[in-house]
Amino acid sequence: MKRTLINNLKEDVVAKISGWAINIRNTKHMIFVILKDSSGKIQVSIDKKSQEKLCEELEGVIANSIITFTGKMVKSEYVKDGGKEFLPSSLEVLSKSDALPLDETANIDTRLDYRWIDLRSEKNNLMLHVQAALVEGMRKFLISEDFTEIHTPKLIGAASESGSDVFEVKYFDRKAYLAQSPQFYKQMAIASGLERVFEIAPAFRAENSNTNRHATEFTSFDLEFAYIDSYEDVMDLEEDLLIAGLNNVKALYGDKIKEYFNVDIIIPKKPFPRIKLQDLYQELKRRYNYQIPDFDVGDMNAEAEKLTSKYAMEVYNSEFIFVTDFAKTKRAFYHMRENDMPLGFDLIWKGTEITTGAQREHRYDILKKQAEEKGLGKDVEFYLEFFKYGCPPHGGFAIGVDRLTMLLLELSSLKEEMFLFRGPSRLTP
Amino acid sequence: MKRTLINNLKEDVVAKISGWAINIRNTKHMIFVILKDSSGKIQVSIDKKSQEKLCEELEGVIANSIITFTGKMVKSEYVKDGGKEFLPSSLEVLSKSDALPLDETANIDTRLDYRWIDLRSEKNNLMLHVQAALVEGMRKFLISEDFTEIHTPKLIGAASESGSDVFEVKYFDRKAYLAQSPQFYKQMAIASGLERVFEIAPAFRAENSNTNRHATEFTSFDLEFAYIDSYEDVMDLEEDLLIAGLNNVKALYGDKIKEYFNVDIIIPKKPFPRIKLQDLYQELKRRYNYQIPDFDVGDMNAEAEKLTSKYAMEVYNSEFIFVTDFAKTKRAFYHMRENDMPLGFDLIWKGTEITTGAQREHRYDILKKQAEEKGLGKDVEFYLEFFKYGCPPHGGFAIGVDRLTMLLLELSSLKEEMFLFRGPSRLTP
Repeated sequence: MKRTLINNLKEDVVAKISGWAINIRNTKHMIFVILKDSSGKIQVSIDKKSQEKLCEELEGVIANSIITFTGKMVKSEYVKDGGKEFLPSSLEVLSKSDALPLDETANIDTRLDYRWIDLRSEKNNLMLHVQAALVEGMRKFLISEDFTEIHTPKLIGAASESGSDVFEVKYFDRKAYLAQSPQFYKQMAIASGLERVFEIAPAFRAENSNTNRHATEFTSFDLEFAYIDSYEDVMDLEEDLLIAGLNNVKALYGDKIKEYFNVDIIIPKKPFPRIKLQDLYQELKRRYNYQIPDFDVGDMNAEAEKLTSKYAMEVYNSEFIFVTDFAKTKRAFYHMRENDMPLGFDLIWKGTEITTGAQREHRYDILKKQAEEKGLGKDVEFYLEFFKYGCPPHGGFAIGVDRLTMLLLELSSLKEEMFLFRGPSRLTP
Repeated sequence: MKRTLINNLKEDVVAKISGWAINIRNTKHMIFVILKDSSGKIQVSIDKKSQEKLCEELEGVIANSIITFTGKMVKSEYVKDGGKEFLPSSLEVLSKSDALPLDETANIDTRLDYRWIDLRSEKNNLMLHVQAALVEGMRKFLISEDFTEIHTPKLIGAASESGSDVFEVKYFDRKAYLAQSPQFYKQMAIASGLERVFEIAPAFRAENSNTNRHATEFTSFDLEFAYIDSYEDVMDLEEDLLIAGLNNVKALYGDKIKEYFNVDIIIPKKPFPRIKLQDLYQELKRRYNYQIPDFDVGDMNAEAEKLTSKYAMEVYNSEFIFVTDFAKTKRAFYHMRENDMPLGFDLIWKGTEITTGAQREHRYDILKKQAEEKGLGKDVEFYLEFFKYGCPPHGGFAIGVDRLTMLLLELSSLKEEMFLFRGPSRLTP
């Protein structure tokens, strides 16, 4: 007999159900098992007197074991939460559980040690589904807009961009490095004649820092597209992309997110507010008496990001806001510039930067000059070659999928959000 | 003015087109530019006498530069291939190309050195689109079947499975390794209460071999699902998955694949033929006088795979065939066994193995024993833990996306197929 999902059970029809026995209660006359599967849960009621064999089979079986029951669902006024129970005629214990090594009061590091148990909670399981729905909504939008998915190498021959913060790999008799982002290769795709590309793949950062929004490995949602007229086109596309992702999440899980996370999914309106960094500094000063420290002038910092969201909400009633006109010293060499000003942006959501995007410099001579200005000669030589034989104007951005989901569900850290967090002191399980 | 794709041009309507000038021909009275974008190509005709300014702007501009033209498309009986030409009133050279460093006769290694130029050919561009369509078709099917996409870490703390063939990473003051597959973690997802999961992500193999079907990094399409009754369920699902992928490819690119690759996309019929290894050996002996070498008894090899496809085509008229009942010494310790026989399979397509799949052993004690039998103690300890606290029966498989596309288009090697090939002596560009 094929398994039936608990939520699909029909009254009085013989069915087989399988799932986690999340609770087993042994009373004087009855054994009650709460069985849970991906669709829901139900009480399985076993009469000790008439079902001796079943009771024997359950001896020594404790909660969190996996059990299959064959029997019938019936309506019952005695059962709370749904008024249904399952009366089994047979059972099979598919997997016996040991006593759990942690309980709900365990701290995050213990929970990560046993992440597969931690993820079983309805809340965490929902979180993983939400992340998948967010990505799928965004991907679907891009495919409908003629973007092509690519898979670029993570093993690279030279430590790209900065050289620091890059993991070194023993590659036979030489060294390789792990890509910090697919930036160079998604641009290579543009030079290869693919006009619109995206990639969803791991990125690696050897940052020895322990903040709530950094991980040494994370999933990067990257895109790049050609024949743009301006970085405004890039911001426009990101608006549509995020709206598509959030719409998918809201349609599939809006109510559940409210229930488990107490978060309302707000679908933003286009266009998102856009403000120049210098104007923003003035607003933050005037409204919140916040002065950007000298060290960060030309850039944002965590405090400024928080206040920027406050400002966006107060003035524009918007969760999202684009900030433009960062100093060239604070931006990557491959951002196109106009009058020495990088044609790029950050997108801030719920107090945190979620994207850096830009129109890219596609003209070989200028790009080479900008790379040299940053002291990047040798390492980006291979990359500069991509622009020597014709490359259309283009732009793009990246979104950290994990950070995006963390903010969406208003979680406190990436450790809570990721399937398996990786940090300087966390490589297991 | 917004850009119009060449294939969307309307007669006599002012439009802006942008793309690669794949050919620039300077004749006595005219300059002809063949402009190509993602939708198609068109001849741009410039009269030297009446359009001096445009001609000046094109001075020194050679083929493979990126140019924007504003003007009108008109019908013209003089133009071959479509009877259309574009008469520009203005142009802008967006990116100047140097003379190409290679031509069509270049060998594969030179072509890989300049992969972004190599990929511009219509054939190679089509190939990348085909791969994306294949993956998208399969992914769409899984999402419609309630599979959830996960992202598992590629940085791992212990050299999993075999220990050999794994890349070592310098991870701050210790060592990490690159995951050879998400096998352990997709099974962890099952133990986490996700009943059906998939992942499309890079996998890494430190194999110092140079065959046409191995790369040190490749894109792995992995899935795992719970509450199966048998590994037959896993084969059933793979049939549906591949049919979905091939259907999507055929619908989008069937005709073009025929034109550029001379390959017919054949949608297989369910069920694919299934044969036990011992029976297969007899068939290969009887039909082709092929005797499996002692070393490979209990397993397949490249020659046997080729003949197996021949057999499947001759007897079943099928491009696909499942082979089951491999020797336990030749299979991973985590394959479930019945009477000492692994409950798994290989899937052969066009003479090559594309999948190894199995029902997994989910019972802790048996799994531990099987791991120890293979001499895998310490390294898989963390993995064994996943099965201690309840884990449903499950199975799954992996497909190499690159190898699958290579076979689909009947290419000679992964070097030809991958966006950027990585091998023992190839880390660039």
